[in-house]
This record gives sequence, structure tokens and C-alpha cells, in this order.
Amino acid sequence: MKNKSFYTLGELAKLLDVQLLGNENIDIGRLATLKNAGQGDLSFLSNPRYVSQLSDCKASALIIHPDQADQSPCACLLTTNPYVTYARASHLFAPATEIVAAIHPTAVINPSATVAATASIGANVVIEEGASVGEGSSIGAGCYIGKQVSIGKHCRLYANVTIYHDVTIADNCVIHSAAVIGADGFGFAFDGKQSLKIAQLGSVEVGDNVEIGAGTTIDRGALDNTVIGTGVKIDNQVQIGHNCIIGDHTVICGCVAIAGSTVIGKFCMIGGAVGIVGHISIADKVLVSAMSLVSKPITKAGTYSSGTGLAESSEWKRNIVRFNQLDDMSKRLRELERITRSS
Amino acid sequence: MKNKSFYTLGELAKLLDVQLLGNENIDIGRLATLKNAGQGDLSFLSNPRYVSQLSDCKASALIIHPDQADQSPCACLLTTNPYVTYARASHLFAPATEIVAAIHPTAVINPSATVAATASIGANVVIEEGASVGEGSSIGAGCYIGKQVSIGKHCRLYANVTIYHDVTIADNCVIHSAAVIGADGFGFAFDGKQSLKIAQLGSVEVGDNVEIGAGTTIDRGALDNTVIGTGVKIDNQVQIGHNCIIGDHTVICGCVAIAGSTVIGKFCMIGGAVGIVGHISIADKVLVSAMSLVSKPITKAGTYSSGTGLAESSEWKRNIVRFNQLDDMSKRLRELERITRSS
Amino acid sequence: MKNKSFYTLGELAKLLDVQLLGNENIDIGRLATLKNAGQGDLSFLSNPRYVSQLSDCKASALIIHPDQADQSPCACLLTTNPYVTYARASHLFAPATEIVAAIHPTAVINPSATVAATASIGANVVIEEGASVGEGSSIGAGCYIGKQVSIGKHCRLYANVTIYHDVTIADNCVIHSAAVIGADGFGFAFDGKQSLKIAQLGSVEVGDNVEIGAGTTIDRGALDNTVIGTGVKIDNQVQIGHNCIIGDHTVICGCVAIAGSTVIGKFCMIGGAVGIVGHISIADKVLVSAMSLVSKPITKAGTYSSGTGLAESSEWKRNIVRFNQLDDMSKRLRELERITRSS
Repeated sequence: MKNKSFYTLGELAKLLDVQLLGNENIDIGRLATLKNAGQGDLSFLSNPRYVSQLSDCKASALIIHPDQADQSPCACLLTTNPYVTYARASHLFAPATEIVAAIHPTAVINPSATVAATASIGANVVIEEGASVGEGSSIGAGCYIGKQVSIGKHCRLYANVTIYHDVTIADNCVIHSAAVIGADGFGFAFDGKQSLKIAQLGSVEVGDNVEIGAGTTIDRGALDNTVIGTGVKIDNQVQIGHNCIIGDHTVICGCVAIAGSTVIGKFCMIGGAVGIVGHISIADKVLVSAMSLVSKPITKAGTYSSGTGLAESSEWKRNIVRFNQLDDMSKRLRELERITRSS
Repeated sequence: MKNKSFYTLGELAKLLDVQLLGNENIDIGRLATLKNAGQGDLSFLSNPRYVSQLSDCKASALIIHPDQADQSPCACLLTTNPYVTYARASHLFAPATEIVAAIHPTAVINPSATVAATASIGANVVIEEGASVGEGSSIGAGCYIGKQVSIGKHCRLYANVTIYHDVTIADNCVIHSAAVIGADGFGFAFDGKQSLKIAQLGSVEVGDNVEIGAGTTIDRGALDNTVIGTGVKIDNQVQIGHNCIIGDHTVICGCVAIAGSTVIGKFCMIGGAVGIVGHISIADKVLVSAMSLVSKPITKAGTYSSGTGLAESSEWKRNIVRFNQLDDMSKRLRELERITRSS
Repeated sequence: MKNKSFYTLGELAKLLDVQLLGNENIDIGRLATLKNAGQGDLSFLSNPRYVSQLSDCKASALIIHPDQADQSPCACLLTTNPYVTYARASHLFAPATEIVAAIHPTAVINPSATVAATASIGANVVIEEGASVGEGSSIGAGCYIGKQVSIGKHCRLYANVTIYHDVTIADNCVIHSAAVIGADGFGFAFDGKQSLKIAQLGSVEVGDNVEIGAGTTIDRGALDNTVIGTGVKIDNQVQIGHNCIIGDHTVICGCVAIAGSTVIGKFCMIGGAVGIVGHISIADKVLVSAMSLVSKPITKAGTYSSGTGLAESSEWKRNIVRFNQLDDMSKRLRELERITRSS
């Protein structure tokens, strides 16, 4: 979509299908935060803890919940979910990202590969035999698309993505730079002397509307496939081991490490830098807080954590000494209770 | 090796050098899990907790321990280590990975570099002056091989690997995409105002039969070399700091972070997302469980852990408050013991 | 700078501006550690715990504090900060890193991009429209420089770095391979059914003298920019979320994960594999120990930690059971105190 450089507030209300409160002729040229917005900017209030910033806000208009509109110092776009409306508005102000259907002359495309006429193939892209790139998809410079890979319609791979052989990517996916999809799962059998490699014969299936962050790695399966469900969003530097199955619409924050053969439910939210051991299942709608280790299956929805809180190191050092005495402390406590009760 | 598309069970027994129990003429076309195997598939039982799946297994044949063969519903390949036999069988069913000796016309190879006649150099590979690639090695598309790098025989670098100058890689190594070997170690000297860079004058030596995962980084040494021993297996997104020495046959799971100048013994198993501080030594045959922090030297073989178990966040929050009172609790417990004893 | 292959000790004393104790005519050809130094090598003593290695040191000369010079078995370069002098000396012994002003014929450079006459552009580099590369900067093979990116003077990008559109990099920066600067921040709004992408309209600003490690990712801002201050040093595989602001001269060790919108002060030292939650502020001169989770703002300088110490797993398992009983233990302790006091 080729964006306009500015909109009237009336146009925005129509495009976003929300009610306008104020002057429909105000020109809006930019989205900005409450704090930094100025004349000609549209801002939004979604997090209640920023209400106090409203009075000082210099924006020309605000995306806001009807219940808070009376506190707005400017024109309003009214919506019961300002964050969602902001998300939709953001695309109106994004730089043009039209896909120019073209194959760069430096691209190396095997004659048996299929590239849709409306796809865009960047400089130095390599597409191996039997691979296919669907309509309206854009493959950034330096990407490697292995043999028999299938990339659906309207996908966007940024520069320097690597997709190993046989991987399938459905429609409307975004994959960021330095991501690697389909490298060998980490499988070895120890014969008493050394680790023997187990050929990784499965592949990776990525569903529709998936986003995969920069530097993220998703390994191919040992026998069956690794599966990433529809609508899954994966941040940067996430590692997903072989044969994991990630349920639809689950969100995985940055630097999460998921060991092999683990099954995660739908609509989960895995916090940043979480570790998840292998061969377990996690139910739908589970939230795991940042940097927790999921060391066992989770069978019901809820919020889960591990770890200790932050402390000044001097205090923390005293407490970790005690942590390593906890079992002893517990037994001594029980003994005291016994004595006290019997006395 | 060019694989066949199917084998008779008799051929497999011979190729794997195991005893056959059943019809040697059964055609086998695929390896599959116990759960998903069907007609024409070979499966395996190595983990005893899957014994219960035997009765429902539809495989045509099983790799199985002789002691459990009586529970098999189908023909058997008998072996005392089914997992090792499965590992060996997996390569018979892997897609052909013959290295086609060829240099892609888009590769940029310095005239002073040496490429063995039997090596394969992919599209857009860059090989700098004085570098060498040994017999039967395959360098994937987009790889960068720095000055004076030495890559041994029968190595496989997948697409988009980066090897800095002077690094040496021995024979039979596998390096996955987006791995970076030989970037500068993280060395700075603070002069009171700013951090001054310390030139990293060492390199990286990688032994025979090493596998290095996607997105893994191994830094060059400050003065001496960083050393990866023979048979070491490193999963994805591992970080190995400058001047580390990793002992032979040690296995390092995904997302492990090892700070500089740390020496790890042989046959260790470092669990996923473990952190290891710098300038310490770890003995041979040490296991570290997932996401532990190794904060001090480990002088004897064994299994080590840190961290806390997973809990529902509401319960966890109560406990981490208490964690920060542990030293106080310990003192109060001792005081109670004193009072109780003296009364 | 083209380095010499050796120096006399007198030349080194002059170049490093330090006092010489001993024979100025000694030839020095290499820097080496105390342990591995031999004839013709210069070593250094900065960490007091290595004093015991002095007596066995075979180096021809030592960089050493004047107070310890009487323990040196060889000639000395005297300095009150041996580590800083070593840092400066290291560059004298580094291989020549002259930037050869040249554009490799395989580079794909948009006609509207500006490349300084003294810059070096490697093989297969892609530079998009409107981008600029300053004087004396070197862009390694396979790098991708997006639209309107600005790279200052005397920067060095190693092979296979990816810089997204609009990012600005100031002068004298070093960026290692597989780093990705300016990928989309991880922003989605959940509409009750699915996660809607929020276009990331900000960019990334990187200050002067910044070093960014291999595989590190720094996301572009949602509305405002992500900002990396002057002199910041970032190790490998660090993840910096959208809209973070990293204060000048802060040092971030490997595998750190920083969630979005967090502001870190100046001269901080963030240990390896630390996690930092989003939307918080950290004061100047804060040290965070390895693998801690910073789960709340830090308002004053100091050293902070979280987690538990390492233990043998059998012992650790007993203690983590007790950790999950801590709140209960605390209450029972209080009850005992009540009974004891009242009796």
C-alpha cells in the first residue's frame, strides 16, 4: 500500500471506522506518543497509567476510549480498544511498502523453481531447485531459499534470511533478518565413545500470519515436522527445538529457548528469556513471566513463574547462602514445632 | 552417499549389522516414530516410557532391545543400543547429500586461496586471500571465509555462515547458518572515561567432528586461541567467549552463554540456556541442568543446578518475598532454637 | 594502520608513553599472556591474582605497575594502569587493518546512495537508495544497508551485517557479523481473536564509538527511536527491544535480553545473560551480575543480583521443594515466635 503523507481527521475516522469528536478538517501527518506529540500529530491513550500525561499533551488528536474523552485536550477518535485502533492506524503512516514485482539480475534462481509474477526477489538471493515463492511475496537481498521450499502469498522475508530445504511457509508471514528456519535439530546418540549424529528427516511447517524475529532459529524435526501454528508471533533470538508444536496465536517474546518435542497450546504468552524443557505439554492460555524456567508440564491456563526477585548483591549473597540451607531450616523448624507442641 | 528410496529389512539388518527377527523381504521406505509409523515404516523403541505404545504400533519393523522383542507386534532389528542403531539408520533414509564438486560462477574467490578439486562452493560465497577449503567440503551459498582461514576435509557449512580471518576448522565439521566463528572477543579496558578496545590477536581452533548450530557465535581469543575440542556438539544460539577451551565430546545445548577464559572438561553435558561465568574450570563429565548459572568452578563430575522450581505466579510472589527475608528467617530460627534448648 | 612486525622495547615505551626499566634494545615481536610468553614477547600484569606467575614468566618484557616492578624477572614498561597500556599496545601488534578504498565489482549500490571515496565496500554488499557510507568506513562482504541508512566515518561492519532502512550509525563504530540493526520492534495489539501488527515507525540511532557484537539485534522504535549512546559496548547475541535508550559508555555483556522502552543509565555494566523487563529505568553506574532478572526499576548506583547459587542437583532439588514452601515456613516461624514469647 502506498501511504499518503497526511490525512484529515475525518478521513482517518472513516478509514479506522471510529467516531470522531471534534474538527474533521484537522490535518494529521504523523503518529506520536502522548509525551512527544505536537501539532499535526495523532496520539493514543491505551495504558491507564498515562492518563496523567493527557493534560500536557500537545497532539492535534487522540485515539481514546469514550469514557476518557472528557479528559482529552484535543479532538478525539473514539474506540473501545484504543490500542487496536492505534495498531490499525500505524499502517496508514508506515512508509510505502509496495512490493515491486521484479527479480534482481544478481539473484540466482534454479530453473526448476517457481516464482510468482507478482513476487519481488532481491539482490543476491539464492533459490534452489523445486522451491516456490507465491504471489506478492518479497524476498530480501541475500536470502537463501533451499530446495523444495514453499513460500506462500504475500510473505515478506527481510535481508539475509536462511530457509533450509523442504520447509513450508504459508501466507502473509514476515521473517526478519538472520533468522534460520529448518536447520538440523540437535539430535545425537552417544555410543559410549562419541556422539553420533541423527539425520533430521522432518521439516518445519509455518502457518499463516506468522511473524518470526531477527536471529530466531526454528529447527527441522527428527522424523515428524516442527509446526508453528497460525498467527503465532515470535520475537528476536528465539530458539525452537526440533518437533516442537506451537499452538495458534501464541506469542513468544525475545530470547526464549524451547527444547525439542515440546507442545505449547494456543493463545499462550511466553515472556522474554523464558526457558522451556523438552518433551512436555503446556495448556492453552498459559502466561509465563520473564526468564522463568518451565521445568514440567503445565496442565491448566494461568500465570507461571520461577526465579527470585532482584536484590542488592550484598543482601542477595546472604540469602542465597540460606537458600542452600533451606531443607535443613525446614527440618529444624519442624523439630521446634514438635518440641513446642509437646511442651 | 546417494540413498536408496527403500530397503528390504534383510538389507537393513546387514547395513546396520544387527540381528533380524522376522521376514527379511519386508520393504522399508521410511523411518517413523512409534506413534506415527505405518505400513512400510521402520520405527524404534529406546525410551522405556514408550513401551506402552508398542501394542498399537503399526510399523512394519522395529529397532528394539532383545529383552523387549517379545512385546513387539512386528518384525525386529535386535540391538543392545536401539538409539545408536536408529542414529545409524537415519542416515540411510536421509535425502541424498552428495557433494557435487563445483564452484558456482558467482563465488568470489581470491586467487591465493586454495579450494580442493572435490569441494563444492555455493553461490555468492566469498573466500579471502590465503584461505583453504579441503577435499569433499561444501561451502553453502553466501558464506564468508576470511583471510588465511583453513577448513579441513568433508566439512559442511550451510548457507550464510561467517568465518573470520585465521580461524582453523578441522575435518568432518558441520556448521549451520548464521553462525559466526572468530568475531572479536569482548575485551575493553576502562581508562576512567571510556572503554578502550583490546585488539583480539588470538583465533579459534575447531577440532574434528564438531557440529556448530545456527546462530552460534564463538569468539576469537585475546592473545591465545579459543579452542573447541574433537567431537564437541554445539546447538543453536550458543555464545562462547574468547579463550574458552571446550573439552572433547562435550555437548552444549541451545542458548548457552559461556563467558571468556572458561575451561570446560571432556564429556560434559551443558543443558539449554545455562550461563557459565568466566575464568573458571569445570571438570570432565559434569552435567548442568537447564538454565542454571555456573557461578564457580566445578571440580568433580556430577550433576549441578541452580534456580527455583516453577510455580503459579501468585504463590511464587509470596515465596520470593520470603526469599529476600531468608537470612533474617535463618537467624530467627536459630534464636528460637537457642531459647527452646535453654528452657 | 600498517603495523610493524616487531618493535624495540624503547620504541614501545615511546609509542605507549610509559617509562622503561631495562634494555631499550630488546626486540619485541608479540604480545602474550604471562603463562605463555617466551623470548621476544611482551606480557602484562594487571590482575593481582597472577602475581605468583611472575617468577616463572619467560617474557622479554612486562607491562607492570611501578609498585610491582621489583618482582619482575625481566625488563618493564611502567604504568599505573597496566590493563589500559596493554589495550593500547594490543593495537600495535594487530594484523594490518588498513581500509583499502575500493568498491568490489559485485556490490549492488543504488545510484542515489553516497559512498565516500575513501570507503571500502566488500563483495556482494547491497546498498539501497539514499543510503550513505562515510569516509574511511569499511562494509564487509554480504552486508545489507537499507534505504536512507546513514553510516558515519571510520566505521567497520564485518561480513553479513544487516541494517534496516533509516537507521543512523555515527562515527568509529564496529558491528560484527550477523548483527541486525533496525528490525521491527515486537509490537502487536490483541483484538480478542488475533494479534494485529503495529507498524514500527521509529528507527535506531547509534552513537559514536559503539561496538555491537555478532548476532546482536537492536530493534527499531514503535514511534520514537531506539537510542544507543556514545561509547556503548555490546557483546554478542544481545537483544535490545524497541524504544530502549542505552546511556553513554554502558557495557552490555553477551546474551543480555532487554525488553522494550527500558532506559539504562550511563556507565552501567550489565552482566552476561541478564534479563531486563520493559518500561523501567535503571540509574547510572549500576552493575547487574550475570543471569539476573531486573524485574523493577533501579534508582541508585550499586550492584544487583537475582537467582540462586549453584548446587549439586540432589541437594538443590530438596531446597527448591522448600522454596515453594517458604511463605508457609515464614508463617510457622512467626507462630513459634509468638508461642515462645508468650510462654
